[in-house]
Amino acid sequence: MKIVLDMMGSDKGSAATKEGAALFHERHPEIELVLVGSKEELSDLPFSFELVDAQDVVEMDMGAIEVLRKKESSLVKAISTCATEKADAVVSAGSTGAFLSASALILKKIEGIIRPALVTNFPNLRTGGSIVILDIGASIRNTPEELAQFALMGTLYSQAVNGIKDPKVRLLSNGAEEGKGSEEGKAAYKLLSESKLINFGGNSEASKVLTGDSDVIVTSGYDGNILLKATEGAAKGMSGLIKKAFKRNLFSKIGYLFAHRGFDELKKTLDPRSTGGALLCGVRAVAVKAHGNSDGLGFANAIEVAYRLANKGIVESLEKAMEGK
Amino acid sequence: MKIVLDMMGSDKGSAATKEGAALFHERHPEIELVLVGSKEELSDLPFSFELVDAQDVVEMDMGAIEVLRKKESSLVKAISTCATEKADAVVSAGSTGAFLSASALILKKIEGIIRPALVTNFPNLRTGGSIVILDIGASIRNTPEELAQFALMGTLYSQAVNGIKDPKVRLLSNGAEEGKGSEEGKAAYKLLSESKLINFGGNSEASKVLTGDSDVIVTSGYDGNILLKATEGAAKGMSGLIKKAFKRNLFSKIGYLFAHRGFDELKKTLDPRSTGGALLCGVRAVAVKAHGNSDGLGFANAIEVAYRLANKGIVESLEKAMEGK
Repeated sequence: MKIVLDMMGSDKGSAATKEGAALFHERHPEIELVLVGSKEELSDLPFSFELVDAQDVVEMDMGAIEVLRKKESSLVKAISTCATEKADAVVSAGSTGAFLSASALILKKIEGIIRPALVTNFPNLRTGGSIVILDIGASIRNTPEELAQFALMGTLYSQAVNGIKDPKVRLLSNGAEEGKGSEEGKAAYKLLSESKLINFGGNSEASKVLTGDSDVIVTSGYDGNILLKATEGAAKGMSGLIKKAFKRNLFSKIGYLFAHRGFDELKKTLDPRSTGGALLCGVRAVAVKAHGNSDGLGFANAIEVAYRLANKGIVESLEKAMEGK
Repeated sequence: MKIVLDMMGSDKGSAATKEGAALFHERHPEIELVLVGSKEELSDLPFSFELVDAQDVVEMDMGAIEVLRKKESSLVKAISTCATEKADAVVSAGSTGAFLSASALILKKIEGIIRPALVTNFPNLRTGGSIVILDIGASIRNTPEELAQFALMGTLYSQAVNGIKDPKVRLLSNGAEEGKGSEEGKAAYKLLSESKLINFGGNSEASKVLTGDSDVIVTSGYDGNILLKATEGAAKGMSGLIKKAFKRNLFSKIGYLFAHRGFDELKKTLDPRSTGGALLCGVRAVAVKAHGNSDGLGFANAIEVAYRLANKGIVESLEKAMEGK
């Protein structure tokens, strides 16, 4: 297996991606790594790898067309290398917009896929496992047919990464009952009810995502973004309140000394670094977008996600499912 | 001032609404209350009020047209009474859909308002104050013009209920920069930038709502619902994790004994009952929807919200602002 890494995309520079690549290499020394970036900056890594020199970096606010012209950038070169060398996966912490456009254009969509989706794992606070959510931002609004394809992608992701055999898929909506939701949502509900490829459980309200019985949540990209970010904001806000509650007075500070281990675990559960990255599902390779501000551990976890997805053959499974349609 | 109360709408029956009405009467004995509901059930209240007998109750899953035919229901009768007696406000814990349709039809829209919006207060975790959010579910998608009117409604609500003189309004979006968002959102951004009636601060990502610098968040109803419910779900999920963290072992249990006062406060901050209810803004009276599962305190707080809004003349302010346009 071969994984291509964009070493220059992280907000924290190549120090973070180098640490991440080294961490991943320690865990999986058998995997071939192709590192794309400044050869000077990458010269001191203590393990063997294929180097592709790229001196340019894609700026965060660059438009899609500008990005594609930046052929010497580490982001575009990493994706091109993945295509030309037929690598299994590519990982980048660079600009999301740039990553999405370049991946769709260079890696190409799988036959039959209308629109790729950005997929991520969310913590399942009920079971301690994970919930797959898609689309979280590759699109703004999606058609019913796109949403139905997302359900299939999410099912394959849940099987591959979370090891759930027959994942329960729900459609994000503003009410649990059928007939609730946007026009696209209502039409998607119908398509999903009729599909034999997925285990459809009906609508899910946003309040039931983290603690409900869903393994996969399907939504339009804009609403997926609101769901993800609102959860992130609430978790961050509450962490602040927890800190404040413990700092309240001498008694609460003593309380912290006794209880902090449990709270360290809670923090870990909600740490965005633990999910690693988001998959652009629907293109002909495993394309994983790591968080822009990934540190070493975050970048290593993103490579791990790419590794697992490639190892389980998610691209091939999706191709096969699309042929069967 | 006269406030009409639907006494039969709560999931918890008239015990909850009676307790709520009594609590409110204790706080504001000078306010005239009109209680609509079964005269038998309301016979034992220990204070004087006007009684309107209504023996029917609107079922939770009734369609809008069915509801309006239920003229003898406490919900429809409460809203009609508010209109015919020219009361200042009406409060109901009944079905949201029924309340929205009956209010819009019977109370009528304020001249110039395209579409009423459902408005609520959210805790501001940064300041300890409140953030106004609208629409949280009167519509699914809203036009740019509707969103621009929501900004004005939210400004008036923030001034009246939260006492903020020049509230900062932001538009919910999937990115902070201009040019992010849905087509309606982008067009609304332009309208809001040009408006002289509001203090527009640009877009807000969902992650910044609870802890950012906004006093008012404007959004389409569907996305407002996702934002509200995702926050509720995350808060609930985290409360569960906090409990678990404290129950972890003997040490953490001792920690709880020391720290619990701070956590009781945290719980209070996030208690949905403390916000009381949501205003249907844009109709010709203060129409407040209390939570369906309101207990006595929750229902009392909803009446309190209605009282404050009526006291500050939010309907008249909105009418004046619309005339000025």
